[in-house]
Amino acid sequence: MDLEIGRAKRARRVYAFDDVAIVPSRRTRDPEVVSTSWTIDAYTFAVPFLSAPMDSVTSPATAIEIGRLGGLGVLGLEGVWTRYDEPEPVLAEIRELPEDEATTRMQELYRAPIREDLIRQRLAEVRAAGVPVAAALSPQRTQEFSSVVVDAGVDLFVIRGTTVSAEHVSKASEPLDLKRFIYELDVPVIVGGAATYTAALHLMRTGAAGVLVGFGGGAATTTRTSLGIHAPMATAVADVAGARRDYLDESGGRYVHVIADGGLGNSGDIVKAIAMGADAVMLGTTFARATEAPGGGWHWGLEAHHDQLPRGRRVRVGQVGSLEEVLFGPAHSPDGTVNLAGALRRSMATTGYSDLKEFQRVEVVVAPYHA
Amino acid sequence: MDLEIGRAKRARRVYAFDDVAIVPSRRTRDPEVVSTSWTIDAYTFAVPFLSAPMDSVTSPATAIEIGRLGGLGVLGLEGVWTRYDEPEPVLAEIRELPEDEATTRMQELYRAPIREDLIRQRLAEVRAAGVPVAAALSPQRTQEFSSVVVDAGVDLFVIRGTTVSAEHVSKASEPLDLKRFIYELDVPVIVGGAATYTAALHLMRTGAAGVLVGFGGGAATTTRTSLGIHAPMATAVADVAGARRDYLDESGGRYVHVIADGGLGNSGDIVKAIAMGADAVMLGTTFARATEAPGGGWHWGLEAHHDQLPRGRRVRVGQVGSLEEVLFGPAHSPDGTVNLAGALRRSMATTGYSDLKEFQRVEVVVAPYHA
Amino acid sequence: MDLEIGRAKRARRVYAFDDVAIVPSRRTRDPEVVSTSWTIDAYTFAVPFLSAPMDSVTSPATAIEIGRLGGLGVLGLEGVWTRYDEPEPVLAEIRELPEDEATTRMQELYRAPIREDLIRQRLAEVRAAGVPVAAALSPQRTQEFSSVVVDAGVDLFVIRGTTVSAEHVSKASEPLDLKRFIYELDVPVIVGGAATYTAALHLMRTGAAGVLVGFGGGAATTTRTSLGIHAPMATAVADVAGARRDYLDESGGRYVHVIADGGLGNSGDIVKAIAMGADAVMLGTTFARATEAPGGGWHWGLEAHHDQLPRGRRVRVGQVGSLEEVLFGPAHSPDGTVNLAGALRRSMATTGYSDLKEFQRVEVVVAPYHA
Amino acid sequence: MDLEIGRAKRARRVYAFDDVAIVPSRRTRDPEVVSTSWTIDAYTFAVPFLSAPMDSVTSPATAIEIGRLGGLGVLGLEGVWTRYDEPEPVLAEIRELPEDEATTRMQELYRAPIREDLIRQRLAEVRAAGVPVAAALSPQRTQEFSSVVVDAGVDLFVIRGTTVSAEHVSKASEPLDLKRFIYELDVPVIVGGAATYTAALHLMRTGAAGVLVGFGGGAATTTRTSLGIHAPMATAVADVAGARRDYLDESGGRYVHVIADGGLGNSGDIVKAIAMGADAVMLGTTFARATEAPGGGWHWGLEAHHDQLPRGRRVRVGQVGSLEEVLFGPAHSPDGTVNLAGALRRSMATTGYSDLKEFQRVEVVVAPYHA
Repeated sequence: MDLEIGRAKRARRVYAFDDVAIVPSRRTRDPEVVSTSWTIDAYTFAVPFLSAPMDSVTSPATAIEIGRLGGLGVLGLEGVWTRYDEPEPVLAEIRELPEDEATTRMQELYRAPIREDLIRQRLAEVRAAGVPVAAALSPQRTQEFSSVVVDAGVDLFVIRGTTVSAEHVSKASEPLDLKRFIYELDVPVIVGGAATYTAALHLMRTGAAGVLVGFGGGAATTTRTSLGIHAPMATAVADVAGARRDYLDESGGRYVHVIADGGLGNSGDIVKAIAMGADAVMLGTTFARATEAPGGGWHWGLEAHHDQLPRGRRVRVGQVGSLEEVLFGPAHSPDGTVNLAGALRRSMATTGYSDLKEFQRVEVVVAPYHA
Repeated sequence: MDLEIGRAKRARRVYAFDDVAIVPSRRTRDPEVVSTSWTIDAYTFAVPFLSAPMDSVTSPATAIEIGRLGGLGVLGLEGVWTRYDEPEPVLAEIRELPEDEATTRMQELYRAPIREDLIRQRLAEVRAAGVPVAAALSPQRTQEFSSVVVDAGVDLFVIRGTTVSAEHVSKASEPLDLKRFIYELDVPVIVGGAATYTAALHLMRTGAAGVLVGFGGGAATTTRTSLGIHAPMATAVADVAGARRDYLDESGGRYVHVIADGGLGNSGDIVKAIAMGADAVMLGTTFARATEAPGGGWHWGLEAHHDQLPRGRRVRVGQVGSLEEVLFGPAHSPDGTVNLAGALRRSMATTGYSDLKEFQRVEVVVAPYHA
Repeated sequence: MDLEIGRAKRARRVYAFDDVAIVPSRRTRDPEVVSTSWTIDAYTFAVPFLSAPMDSVTSPATAIEIGRLGGLGVLGLEGVWTRYDEPEPVLAEIRELPEDEATTRMQELYRAPIREDLIRQRLAEVRAAGVPVAAALSPQRTQEFSSVVVDAGVDLFVIRGTTVSAEHVSKASEPLDLKRFIYELDVPVIVGGAATYTAALHLMRTGAAGVLVGFGGGAATTTRTSLGIHAPMATAVADVAGARRDYLDESGGRYVHVIADGGLGNSGDIVKAIAMGADAVMLGTTFARATEAPGGGWHWGLEAHHDQLPRGRRVRVGQVGSLEEVLFGPAHSPDGTVNLAGALRRSMATTGYSDLKEFQRVEVVVAPYHA
Repeated sequence: MDLEIGRAKRARRVYAFDDVAIVPSRRTRDPEVVSTSWTIDAYTFAVPFLSAPMDSVTSPATAIEIGRLGGLGVLGLEGVWTRYDEPEPVLAEIRELPEDEATTRMQELYRAPIREDLIRQRLAEVRAAGVPVAAALSPQRTQEFSSVVVDAGVDLFVIRGTTVSAEHVSKASEPLDLKRFIYELDVPVIVGGAATYTAALHLMRTGAAGVLVGFGGGAATTTRTSLGIHAPMATAVADVAGARRDYLDESGGRYVHVIADGGLGNSGDIVKAIAMGADAVMLGTTFARATEAPGGGWHWGLEAHHDQLPRGRRVRVGQVGSLEEVLFGPAHSPDGTVNLAGALRRSMATTGYSDLKEFQRVEVVVAPYHA
């Protein structure tokens, strides 16, 4: 629906996860007969969950544990694990920073250089555990470190930034030519965030195996306050799913995975992301609440310590149970933070769907939240 | 109205009771000339109110009292009255549980087995009082216990679950064949919750005498948070009333009663449920506030102690007066918790309607609440 | 705009004063060249303000003072002034009642009988001051006391109830035949509340000189909670103004005044009422804040002490200045409670209108409030 | 979209900055390749920021500093700098006034006469610093003081009032003939606030070089409460940008600058103002937060001390850094108060635009804020 803001401007109404809900249809199923499995390239996962490559979420240890539990741990290569031999004391210091000093001190701590030896060491650690290895770089760092990463051996390569486009204009340096980079790489690439149909379609044309939908972090509020930019997730996912469908036709059958990344604070949001057309979800906050998460009950992203213009905060998310409990329960509270996979399974069962691809067709309603 | 959420998804705008209100027309009446009576099958009730089969609302004693006052008490057969010889201490313990232990302990307490002797004993107690006897089972337990229930003698049989469909897919066990079950049963069956036109229409085709509209409990918020599912009640009731109308035509005249079940926190909500097309309402929270209610000022549903994925909470609702005062006043506060029947009567009078069936045609407006 | 709530129900979107605002046009004026005068029947007022016939607002003394200041004081004849020789101690007691006892005690205090001698005495007092005399009865009491009132001498007769219709159905007593009553009466009658086009049109056909738009009190919230009824004022006034226009044509030129009554908490609301098409406004809360107001900083309506189903509360409104300051300033705070006439005048000036009738055409926007 | 409020009134849906956001497109840029420069008449500025002519924002000293940093300081000539030889003690007193006395005392303090010698002295001070000189008068004072101002020498003349129209009707005095005044003046004139297409178009026809969009202050809330007037900024800017486009055609090529003035509390709002079509923004609150700002952490406008009908308040805005930091960072908090120019630059880069005029075409969405 095209709305007139004023004489010289029109706009489209867009929707957040909080604006929508799903509704049951005429059939129901037992949760036991429902499948939540997800396959990308040669890899099949029991649950369609990727961990966000953020210091508060994914360490080598949690990447391994998430892999063992049936998901995909994605290790970020620009955080404390590749800057410090001993990251634990740095994490501990970040956790204990007073509110008004947090951003400034984090800006300092993340100025330590990224070391190639640590990249190799951290990836080897994950590989040794026998789970799929996935690692993430920002577009700005991809050219500098990608060969080290590929040599170290990864199964899935993630390029993740606030907004990633297939056509970046820069004077300072030769910008990353995504199409050529992906073509030359041996491993499948997941790239994003993209929040619109056009941006996602262009990323799909670069040869990416998957596109991250969102802004790469939980900083929606502060991005809106400081940059005026906001792409509510329900619309963003449904738009990018539209790009997947159109690109499938245009490419003669190449299926690019749509991975929702951001705005996923509870199991209801995860359900809605799939309902909007996502194939999988990248989880930050929900995994940061696990007792094993390196953030220790805190959560922060790369934008939180941007040198000139920080656009996020270190936030307290608390701890609700082990990673296994977060994924598979049992839950002792109805707040959607524990048993994420069970909630997804039950939601699919209640609305009568038996696999994720079918569930993308579930009926959706617009029902603003009466808290 | 069909809205585009994004390229690959469309949705319908739906409405909660809080989104709507009713408006007067050109005629007014004295409350005394208004009738609130409701007839289903061979039973006529002075007020169109059923009690919810929840431990905090309906005990044998309150079922009897509600029957005497002109409503229908519906006893739940999967709660403390059929699991414990002495339920009062169990209820007392639940009331006194600290907030952070409540869900876990309730999960334990409701693991006690359901006993057939207690089912017989509780139903006999209600029958002995000379009021209509109604009892409720979940769809999962209906096959196991229905013959005991029917042998014990009920006038109305209620099958109530979070979401009940006419077509349930299961591997674990032979699912309940509602159509055959209802056909073979001697007593009229009320079944639900259903929240959509299609689901309700299929339930009507099973031969049910009435359909419950809603999710079978006050857990709307937590269901939305944990499962992403939400079916706001104003739209749900109006949709199911549409199914009643279409089924009336399709069946050549069989009138299936529409009973709103959920989201009915005050008398204004009850009025709106009828205005949307409900024939009667099943009351949980509003009856839980009576001094005789077994919850003793607390309220909880079956979902609150689900083993793996609890989707509700034990909530404090307080006490506002006796059941008789809750139904017929007098009220000493304008908050819509006391004199439910009087409020319904006055609302009908103010808008000029003389019986419930007529009142379903009252004019409705969309007017989001400015609290 | 006709919206589908569900298959069996459609509804219209309606608007409250808080949903709308007015906007300037290309012309501006000095406030000094703007007229706020209002003429009904043989009476012209400097400001289009009537006081609400409520015990917390209008006493004989404040009716006189409001008349002297250029408005119209409307004395309620079913409150403390016609039930008690000495109403001041009763008012003082009401002011000091603890919150949880207020409704119950007020229900008792208002059971004292209405006395004809006091009706005569109070009206004589106002008449003696040389200002126009206006008095109000509820429809239920109009037949019983109207001849006393008319004999005592009033210039304007107000019949004011929660919802007043031209066609009231009653078994208990012969209902008031408004058309005949108004025809036989010598004085102009203002009648309401009406909240819809149809109800207002029927009231206009009874011969009324004016129609009150609203529910006769500030009890919108509690009426919605307890009865499910709500008629937001922006739409209600614009609808009744439409009835005025259509009746003007139908009657061959009889102009019935539209008087907004309710939802007028600050000068911005008063401005919007006129902008929606009102000729004048009846003020409760805003006058109850005057230091002379008999409520002494508290405010309550007749619904607040209804015997069986109270639908309002005694609320603390505070005191902001003398009646003269409330009407004409100067204000020392920008909250719209003081200098009501000055605000109306400035708003008309800023948007370029020179009298109230013209100002009814001012451009209006829908702009939900970001508090 | 034209909405029916009621039978006799239609309205248009309008939008605030909080209702909208901008979205990325398929291209991104480095912030370094983006230009934020703005040219009006013979003057080019590095950033499109004007300071509001309010005592809490612009002193001769801050006007100079803002000029040096690449913006335009606009000195108000009806505040303390032209009424007092020593304004600092007056400012200090205002800062320290208790809440309940602030409006009354400010009404007194601003009754001191405006002195021509001080106008000359303050403007000379700014000119001596070598930055562009801009000064503001209200329409009411323009005739009285404009010749003094022009003789003192200004590069840009600002006429700023709550609502300024090209056609003001007055009896008390000869109203300002804007068209003639601007024609006869040697310096370019910026005039406003105007909030609608028609009002702005008429102002453009007077020969103004720029039009201020808004109500000339942060008093939107209180103006709505007291006058019922509200023109949300997203719609207002887009409407006036539409007037600019139509006037460009009508005048055969005269480009009138659109300057958003009001509702700009953080960098996100500034971004949105440009996105709606503004060429530049006039900043009050955001500059009042600078440590050099004369308000010392407080902020107030002329309406706050209006004699009869104050429509604003002195508000505490706090201090967040030097003017240089407010403009260019670095930021240590993601709240959009520091590094305004950096945020604008990054927003343009993220959405792929390289200059302000292009950026006016950025895609906009309606996405009500979930705080």
